[in-house]
Amino acid sequence: MRDVDIIGVGLTSFGKHLDKSLVDLGGMVAIEAVKEAGIKPSEVNIGFFSNMLAGSIFTDFTIGENVLWQAGISRVPVFNIENACTSGSSAFNLGWMSVASGAYDIAIVVGAEKLIVPNLGMMQAGKTELDTLEGLVVPTAFAMRANLHMKTYGTTKEQLAMVAVKNRRHAGLNPRAQFRKPITIEEVLNGPTIADPLTKLSCCPNADGAAAIVLCVSDLSRRYNSRPVRVAASVLQTGSYENPCNLAVWDADRRASRIAYEKAGLGPKDLSVVECHDAFTISEICHYEGLGLCPEGEGGRFIESGATTLGGKIPVNPSGGLLSKGHPIGATSVAQIVEGYRQLRGEAGDYQVEGAKVFMAECMGADKAGDVKTCTVNILKI
Amino acid sequence: MRDVDIIGVGLTSFGKHLDKSLVDLGGMVAIEAVKEAGIKPSEVNIGFFSNMLAGSIFTDFTIGENVLWQAGISRVPVFNIENACTSGSSAFNLGWMSVASGAYDIAIVVGAEKLIVPNLGMMQAGKTELDTLEGLVVPTAFAMRANLHMKTYGTTKEQLAMVAVKNRRHAGLNPRAQFRKPITIEEVLNGPTIADPLTKLSCCPNADGAAAIVLCVSDLSRRYNSRPVRVAASVLQTGSYENPCNLAVWDADRRASRIAYEKAGLGPKDLSVVECHDAFTISEICHYEGLGLCPEGEGGRFIESGATTLGGKIPVNPSGGLLSKGHPIGATSVAQIVEGYRQLRGEAGDYQVEGAKVFMAECMGADKAGDVKTCTVNILKI
Repeated sequence: MRDVDIIGVGLTSFGKHLDKSLVDLGGMVAIEAVKEAGIKPSEVNIGFFSNMLAGSIFTDFTIGENVLWQAGISRVPVFNIENACTSGSSAFNLGWMSVASGAYDIAIVVGAEKLIVPNLGMMQAGKTELDTLEGLVVPTAFAMRANLHMKTYGTTKEQLAMVAVKNRRHAGLNPRAQFRKPITIEEVLNGPTIADPLTKLSCCPNADGAAAIVLCVSDLSRRYNSRPVRVAASVLQTGSYENPCNLAVWDADRRASRIAYEKAGLGPKDLSVVECHDAFTISEICHYEGLGLCPEGEGGRFIESGATTLGGKIPVNPSGGLLSKGHPIGATSVAQIVEGYRQLRGEAGDYQVEGAKVFMAECMGADKAGDVKTCTVNILKI
Repeated sequence: MRDVDIIGVGLTSFGKHLDKSLVDLGGMVAIEAVKEAGIKPSEVNIGFFSNMLAGSIFTDFTIGENVLWQAGISRVPVFNIENACTSGSSAFNLGWMSVASGAYDIAIVVGAEKLIVPNLGMMQAGKTELDTLEGLVVPTAFAMRANLHMKTYGTTKEQLAMVAVKNRRHAGLNPRAQFRKPITIEEVLNGPTIADPLTKLSCCPNADGAAAIVLCVSDLSRRYNSRPVRVAASVLQTGSYENPCNLAVWDADRRASRIAYEKAGLGPKDLSVVECHDAFTISEICHYEGLGLCPEGEGGRFIESGATTLGGKIPVNPSGGLLSKGHPIGATSVAQIVEGYRQLRGEAGDYQVEGAKVFMAECMGADKAGDVKTCTVNILKI
C-alpha cells in the first residue's frame, strides 16, 4: 500500500443551516476542499459521500453524485456510504484505500447531514431491530453502559458530567461549534433526565453540517500542498457481537485502535491530540479506556485528573466534540479528521494544541447484541 | 492491482418473500456464497452490503453488519453502499478493489432489497430533486428517451416490445424468475400505458430478492474452488451531467464499457453473453448501442434481428432480465454477476449459453440533467 496524504479540507459550522439543502452543504465543503488542495475538479479520480438519514428523512438517493457535481466533479466513480455514526470515517477509509491501493491518485471524501428538521424522532438502530422495538433506542443503550461502568468501576455521575463541562469549555474557543456558553457540573446533573443517569447535557445535540477531505498519494501531494498531513493508519472494524458481552468494555474500540497503532508504528503515548465520538458523556470515558489513553476502568478518574482538557497530557475533543458542536451524523467523523489536519498544521486557532505532531480520530456507530457495531480509528501525523 | 476471482455465489428467487426480512434474505445468500466458496466465515476479511430503499421504507441502518452476522462474519470492516440501481455493482466494484489492491484477500459482497411492501409509491430520483418535483419520475424519464430514440433512429414500438417478449421467453427457462408465462408483442403494446410509449409490460416489476458473491485473490482461489471465475474488469463511472445532453445516447455506458474493454483486453465481439439493466424496454435497446454490441441508432433493428435472443449471436439477459425477474434494487446488479459466474461455469441450467467464455454485466442508475447518473460494467471470464 502507498502512503497517502490529506491535501485539502472543507468544513461548515455545525448547527442550524435552515437555508441550505444537504446538497448545498456538501457542495460548499467539496468546493472549499478542492480549492484548498489547489487541484482542478477534473483531477479528482474518485469520490465517496457519507450520510445516514437522508433516505429516511428526505427519501433522497445518490446524493454524492449531486454534491460532487456542485464542485465540478463528474465522470468518475462515486459511492454513497452509510455506516451509522461512522458513515463519514467509513467513506474516509474507502477513500484512503482507493489511493493507498494504487487504483487512484486523488480521492475526495464528503460527509453531510441535515438533522434540524421537524419530527426527527428518537435516534434508534432501525425500526425493524428487535432492540429498538423493545425500547432500546440509542440514549437508553448508553445509559445502560453508564450504569454498568459506575457499578463496576466506581465511576461517578460527577465524572460523567465533567466530560460535558470540559467539551463545552473547549467549544467556547471554536467559532464553528453550535453551543459555546460554559456549563457547570451542577447544570449537567440537574438538567432533565433523558435516560438515567444521562441528562440532556450528557447527550449530544442534533445539527446540520458538512465536511470534506481531499486525499492524494504522497508522491504527488507536495505538488499541491507544501504541508500535507500523512494518514498514518486508517482502520475500520465491526464488533464481535458476542452475546452476552460486557457493555462497559468496547471490544471494537480496542481492536481498531490496536490495529491502527500497529500500522502507524505508534502507541497511545505518542498521541498529541484526540477527537473521539462523545455522543454521550459515558462514550468519551469508555473511549479513553478503549484507545489505551488510560487503563480499563480508570476513565472516570482520568477526566477528573484534567489529563484530557486543553493544556493537559492528552487533550481530547479540543473542538468541543459532539457534545457541544452537535452530531450531523454523516459529517461528524469526516469533521473529526478535518480537525486533525488543522491541529497538525497549527491552524486550529484558539483551541490549538501546541506542537501537535500525531492526531487520532475515533468514531463508533450503532449497537448489536450490546456490542459496538462499527468503529473507526484514523491516525494522522505531520 | 492483483487478479481477483469469484469463488462462491448465492442467489434467492426474485419475487415475493413476504415471510422473510431484508436481513433474512441477505443472510441466506451470504451463507450460500460462503458455503459454495468452501471458506470459513472467519476467513472473510471485508464485507460490502448494497441496498437502496430500506432507509426510506423501513427506517433501517447498518444492515450489512446484521446480514453478515447471520453468516457468522464479524470483527471485519463492513460498509453499506447505495448508488440507486447500481448499488449492488458499486458494492461489487469496491469488493473487487479491496482484494485487487492487496489490502484484503477475501471479500464478500451482498445485495438485498424488499420492495413488495404496501405504499411503495412511484420510483423517483429523490423527493428533493427538482426533476422529481416537476413530475419526472423514473418511468417518464425513460419514456422521453424512448420517444427520442424512435424519432431520431426510426425505432418502432414493436421493436421496443420485442425486448419484453424475448426476456419473458428467457424467463420461462429460469425457475428463479418472477414472471415466466410467455407474452406477445400485442400484449405488450395493448397493456395499460405507464408513460407513453411505455406500457405496463415495458417496465420491470418490483421484487424482493438477494444475491451474494465471494471474491478471492487469484493466487489463492484454487485452494477453495477448482473452477474460479476471473474478474477481467470492474468499472464504475458517473455521468457527465452536461445539460443539454442527448437523451438517446448514454455517455456513461459508452465510457464505462470502453474502459472495461480496455482493462480486459477484449472487445464487444469477444462477449459470449450479457446481462444488462433492462429496467424498461428502451433501456436494453440503448445498452446494445452503449456497450458497442451494435452501432448507434441500430438497437431497434438489433433486437428484431434475433441477435440477442438465446441461440443468437450475443444473448442478452438469458436469465429473463429485470423485465421478467423483477428489480430488487440492491440485489439486482449483484445477481447479474452471479448469473455470469454460473453461465461461465456451465451451470445456468435451461438458459445456459453454450460454451460461454466471456460475460458482461451492465447496470445503470438514476438520472441527472437527463444523463445517466451512474453506470457499472463488469467483465468476467473463465
